[in-house]
Amino acid sequence: MINPVTKTLGMALAVSALLGFSLSAATAADKPSGDNLKKHQTSPSGKYQPSLDVMPGQKMEQPGQKEGVPTLTKAEFGIANKIYFERCAGCHGVLRKGATGKPLTAKVTKELGFDHLKSFITYGSPGGMPNWGTSGEMSENEIDIMARYLLNEPPTPPEFGMKEVKSTWKVHIPADKRPKKKMNNLNIENLFSVTLRDAGQVALIDGNSKKIVHIITTGYAVHISRLSASGRYLFVIGRDALVNMIDLWMKTPATVAEIKIGMEARSVETSKYKGYEDKYAIAGAYWPPQFVIMDGDTLEPLKIVSTRGMTVDTQEYHPEPRVAAIVGSHYKPEFRVNVKETGKILLVNYEDINNLKVTSIAAERFLHDGGLDSTKRYFLSAANARNTIAVIDMKEGKLVKLITENDGIGTTPHPGRGANFVHPKFGPVWATSHLGDETVALIGTDPKGHPKQAWKVVQSLEAQGGGSLFVKTHPKSKNLWVDSPLNPEADVASSIAVFDINDLSKEYQVLPIGEWSGISEGVRRVVQGEYNKAGDEVWFSVWNGKKQESAIVVVDDKTRKLKAVIKDKRLVTPTGKFNVYNTMNDVY
Amino acid sequence: MINPVTKTLGMALAVSALLGFSLSAATAADKPSGDNLKKHQTSPSGKYQPSLDVMPGQKMEQPGQKEGVPTLTKAEFGIANKIYFERCAGCHGVLRKGATGKPLTAKVTKELGFDHLKSFITYGSPGGMPNWGTSGEMSENEIDIMARYLLNEPPTPPEFGMKEVKSTWKVHIPADKRPKKKMNNLNIENLFSVTLRDAGQVALIDGNSKKIVHIITTGYAVHISRLSASGRYLFVIGRDALVNMIDLWMKTPATVAEIKIGMEARSVETSKYKGYEDKYAIAGAYWPPQFVIMDGDTLEPLKIVSTRGMTVDTQEYHPEPRVAAIVGSHYKPEFRVNVKETGKILLVNYEDINNLKVTSIAAERFLHDGGLDSTKRYFLSAANARNTIAVIDMKEGKLVKLITENDGIGTTPHPGRGANFVHPKFGPVWATSHLGDETVALIGTDPKGHPKQAWKVVQSLEAQGGGSLFVKTHPKSKNLWVDSPLNPEADVASSIAVFDINDLSKEYQVLPIGEWSGISEGVRRVVQGEYNKAGDEVWFSVWNGKKQESAIVVVDDKTRKLKAVIKDKRLVTPTGKFNVYNTMNDVY
Repeated sequence: MINPVTKTLGMALAVSALLGFSLSAATAADKPSGDNLKKHQTSPSGKYQPSLDVMPGQKMEQPGQKEGVPTLTKAEFGIANKIYFERCAGCHGVLRKGATGKPLTAKVTKELGFDHLKSFITYGSPGGMPNWGTSGEMSENEIDIMARYLLNEPPTPPEFGMKEVKSTWKVHIPADKRPKKKMNNLNIENLFSVTLRDAGQVALIDGNSKKIVHIITTGYAVHISRLSASGRYLFVIGRDALVNMIDLWMKTPATVAEIKIGMEARSVETSKYKGYEDKYAIAGAYWPPQFVIMDGDTLEPLKIVSTRGMTVDTQEYHPEPRVAAIVGSHYKPEFRVNVKETGKILLVNYEDINNLKVTSIAAERFLHDGGLDSTKRYFLSAANARNTIAVIDMKEGKLVKLITENDGIGTTPHPGRGANFVHPKFGPVWATSHLGDETVALIGTDPKGHPKQAWKVVQSLEAQGGGSLFVKTHPKSKNLWVDSPLNPEADVASSIAVFDINDLSKEYQVLPIGEWSGISEGVRRVVQGEYNKAGDEVWFSVWNGKKQESAIVVVDDKTRKLKAVIKDKRLVTPTGKFNVYNTMNDVY
Repeated sequence: MINPVTKTLGMALAVSALLGFSLSAATAADKPSGDNLKKHQTSPSGKYQPSLDVMPGQKMEQPGQKEGVPTLTKAEFGIANKIYFERCAGCHGVLRKGATGKPLTAKVTKELGFDHLKSFITYGSPGGMPNWGTSGEMSENEIDIMARYLLNEPPTPPEFGMKEVKSTWKVHIPADKRPKKKMNNLNIENLFSVTLRDAGQVALIDGNSKKIVHIITTGYAVHISRLSASGRYLFVIGRDALVNMIDLWMKTPATVAEIKIGMEARSVETSKYKGYEDKYAIAGAYWPPQFVIMDGDTLEPLKIVSTRGMTVDTQEYHPEPRVAAIVGSHYKPEFRVNVKETGKILLVNYEDINNLKVTSIAAERFLHDGGLDSTKRYFLSAANARNTIAVIDMKEGKLVKLITENDGIGTTPHPGRGANFVHPKFGPVWATSHLGDETVALIGTDPKGHPKQAWKVVQSLEAQGGGSLFVKTHPKSKNLWVDSPLNPEADVASSIAVFDINDLSKEYQVLPIGEWSGISEGVRRVVQGEYNKAGDEVWFSVWNGKKQESAIVVVDDKTRKLKAVIKDKRLVTPTGKFNVYNTMNDVY
C-alpha cells in the first residue's frame, strides 16, 4: 500500500496555482473537482470568482512605461491584472516578490525574456507551474498579454486601512436586539459549520440528525470557521476577507454583523482567555499584510496592525508578509499569529490594545498552519516550504525548537491543526502529514513526562501517499485518520488511511470513503476528517466539482464502518467542516 | 523683553528646509550660519554634503514615464534625485508622503501643475517653503528639472537590510585588544563630546581644562552623543546613519567600531538597565524606517526591526515612519523608541531579542524628542506638529496623557530632553520651550505628591521669543536657561534668557553670550546649554558658519557671569555638547 509519490508537491502546487492561491490550513477547502489530478491539470472544470475585490475608487493604477519594455493598453492592463490576481498572486505574491512560487519582479522577468515567459505560461513546468496554454485555461492572446504584463513593474495594490475597513462594516442586528437566550432547539455544541466553497456559503448541519439546519451566505470560499469562547457566535472568513459573525442563539441562526478586513484573507479567531470570552475577534489578511482586532459583539474594527517587516533569517525587508493561522491562547490573553513570509510568530496581547504588547518570535520562513499540543501550552506550526515544524511555548512566549528535515520532518508538512494522542511507547505526541510525501511525523510533546522524546520525531508512519492535507484523531478515539486528497492517484485521493494508535506497527486500513458516498462521478476527493462532539463518529467531505454531486460521509469511529451519507442539492463543494464543540475547545 | 514672533515656526522650518532636514532633537546642531535668519534665507553661506549615501549597487531606479507627464533624461533624474534628497526629503519625506512639509505625491503635484510647482520652488511660501530660486540656491534650469521630477512618481529608495548593514560594520579594535583599565588621565565623567557639525567630527573637550583632548572623525553632522551605562564607551551617530563607538579608556580615545544602520538617521542609545550595562546599543533610522539593535561591545548588528505600520489616529498604512528619539529605560530592560509619522511610542524589551517583546503605545503623530522626568519613570515626548506632549509611564508601559494646546502647550514644542526642577509652588515639573512661540511650558510630573498638578501645564513662562530649541537646568542649579537660536532677531538668537527657579514671577535675565564670545562676525547663534558634571557651570555653543569663527562660552551657574570662552581653529560649527556624566545618567 506504500506509495511514495514523486513530484506530488509540485502537482499539488500546480493545482493550487490553477486555483489562484497557495495551499493553506483548512484549504482542503481550496480545491474544486476534476476527474483526477492529472486530468484536472489539463482541463480544470470550474470557473471561479475573482478573489480580489478591490474597493470602489481604489483601482490598481497602471505603472509607468519604460524604455525597452513592451507596452500594454489600458484594456490589456485590466485583463492582465485580473488574471494575475485570480491565477498567479496566490503563489507568486501580490507584489510578485515570490512566495510558494518564484519571484516575478521585473528584474527577474527581464532576465527570462518575453519568449521564455510566454512558453513557461503556455507549457508550465514540472516544478509546479500550471500549463495555462495547453490546458486551454488561457488563450494565446491572454498569454501574450501576461508575458508583457510581467515584463512591466508590478502595480501597487491599494491599502485597506481603517477608513476602508470601516466602510465595509455592517451590524445587521445590534447586540441589544439579539436574543437573551438560545431561541432554537439545536444542539449547538454538536453543530457543524461546513464550507460550501464554490457557492460562497456555509451550511450549518445538525450533528445529531445530520440535516442541514440553515445555509448562510458568506464571503467566497470560506477558509475557516471559528467559535467565540462561549460557543454562541460563529465566525467565518472568506478568501475575499469578508468576515461573517453568526449568532447561533437565534431561532434561525443568521449573520448579525459582517466586515471586510482586507482584500484577501485566510484566518479569523476569537479571544478565549478567562475574562475575555467573546470580547474580541481577530482576522488576518493576505493583502494588505495586516491583522485587525475587532469588538467581539459587533465586529467593530478597533486596531489594525501591519505585519510588514524584516524576514527572520536574512533580516531583509519584506513588503508582503501574509497572515496565516491565528490561534487564541488559553494560557494568556493573547492571539498567536503566524506571519508567513517573514517567519515570525506574533503573540499579540489583547489586555490593553491601546498599549499593545506583541512578542515577535523568530521562527522560520513561510509559516503556515499548525495546532496546539494536548495541554494547549505549546503551539506547533509548519514552516512548510522549509520542511520545518516550529514549536513555541505560549506560556513563556518563546521559541522552543525548530524541528527540521534533519530531525525527520518530511517534505512540506501540512498539519492543519494536527492530531494529538498518547503514543503507547513515547507518550503524548502531535502528528502532521505532508503534502510532499507519504509520511506522518509523530512529535513528542511532553517535555516533563517524556523529556527524551520532547520535540523529536519519535516515529514516522507511512500512509497512502503524498498530497495529504489533514490528519485527525480525538481524545476518545484510538484511530488516526490521514487523508490524501491531492494525491494524483484517484483511488488514493478518494480514500482514507486509518492507523490504530494502540499498535502503530500495524498496517493502516484503507476506507474507500469516495465509494461509500455512492457518488459515481468525479474524483470524489476525500478530505478533512472532523469528529462530532462525543468523539464517536468522524465526518469526511467527498468533494467534487461545483456542478457535480458531493457528499459528507460519516464513519463510526469504533467500528470504522459507514454510519451515514449526507447528501443534499445544496451541498455544493463541501470542504472544511467545523464541529462547534471541538472548534471552540481546540479539541484535535 | 517679551517678543512674540509671528511666523517663527514657518521661518524655522524654512531654515530647516534649506538644510534639507526637519527640525529635530539635538538639531540645534542642524543649522549653519548666516548673518541673520532673514539674510540666511536669501543667501545661505555654506554648501553641505549630501545626506543620503546610497550603497554601491543600490542606486535609485528611475520610475517609468507616464503619458501626459513631462519626461526627464537620465542625467536630469540624477540631478533631481540628489537635490531632492539634499533639500526636500527632510520635510517632505523620502517617499514624498509629507511630514513637516506637505505631501508631494504625483497625484498632489499633478493637481498643482508644472507652473505652480516652478513658482513655488522659486519664490517659496510664508508657510515655511524656502525661496530656492530667488535665494540663488537653485538655478532656473534646476528648478525646471525639479518641477518635472515632482510630476513623476517618486523613485523607491533602496532598502538597507542586514546584508547592507553588515557590509558597513567595522571593528577597528576587537574587545580583547582594548585596555583593561583607563589608560589616560582624563576626568572622563566631566568630558564633553561636542558635535562639529559641518566638519563631520566630534571634539572631546576636557571639562576641567576646557581644552580639546582629541578630534574624532565621524559621520556627517553628528546628531547626538550617548554613553554606555558604564560611561566607558561613547556612541555618536551622523545624519548619514554612521555610528561611531569610541573607547574613552584608550590612551587617546578613538573609534573602536563603526557601522551604518541605514541611509539617514538621528538617534543612538545604549542599554542601561541593571544587568544589561554596556550589553546593547540601538540606533534608529529615518530611511529605511527601522531600528537596529547591536552588540554593545562590537556594534555587531543583531536585530533589525521595521517601523512601517499604521498611523495612530486614522489607522492607515504609512510607508515611512521615521525613528526619532530613543531612550534607554532605567526601570526595565527596555528601549523607548519614538516613531514619528505613525505616532507610536515603542517599548522594546531587550531581555530576549530572539523573542522580542515590543509594546506599541498609541500616542500622537509626529513624535519627535523628549525626556524623562526626574524620577526617570515617566517620559514626556513632543508630538510637535500637533502641539502636544505625550506622557508615558515607562514602568506600566502605557500612555498616561496627551497634553495638548487646550491644556496650555504652545506652538511646536521642542524640548530636546527638557528640564526637570522643583517648582516652588507646584512641585516637580518638566519644562519645554517651543519653536513656534516664546513660551516655556512647565508640566507637573509628580502624580503622588502633587496629583492636582500632574500632567498639567502649571505655568507658562514667556521667554525672549520663538525659535527656541532647548531649555536647561541641573539638580544643583536654580537657573532655567532658554535658548532661541532660530529666532529671526539676531540679538535674540545670540543671547540666552535665564529664569530664577526660586522666583519665576521675576523677569528673566538676558545674557549676551554671542557678545561674550568675542566673535564679531556672523549671527553667533547661541544654542544648547549643557552643564558640567558638578552642575556649577553651563556651556553654550556660539555657532557660526563653517568658514566663520565659532566658540563655546562657559557661564558660572551661580553668578551668571562669563567663566571661560573656548576657542580653537578646530572648533568648526560646534553645536550639540554632551557631558559624559549627565548624559550617561540622564541628568537634565
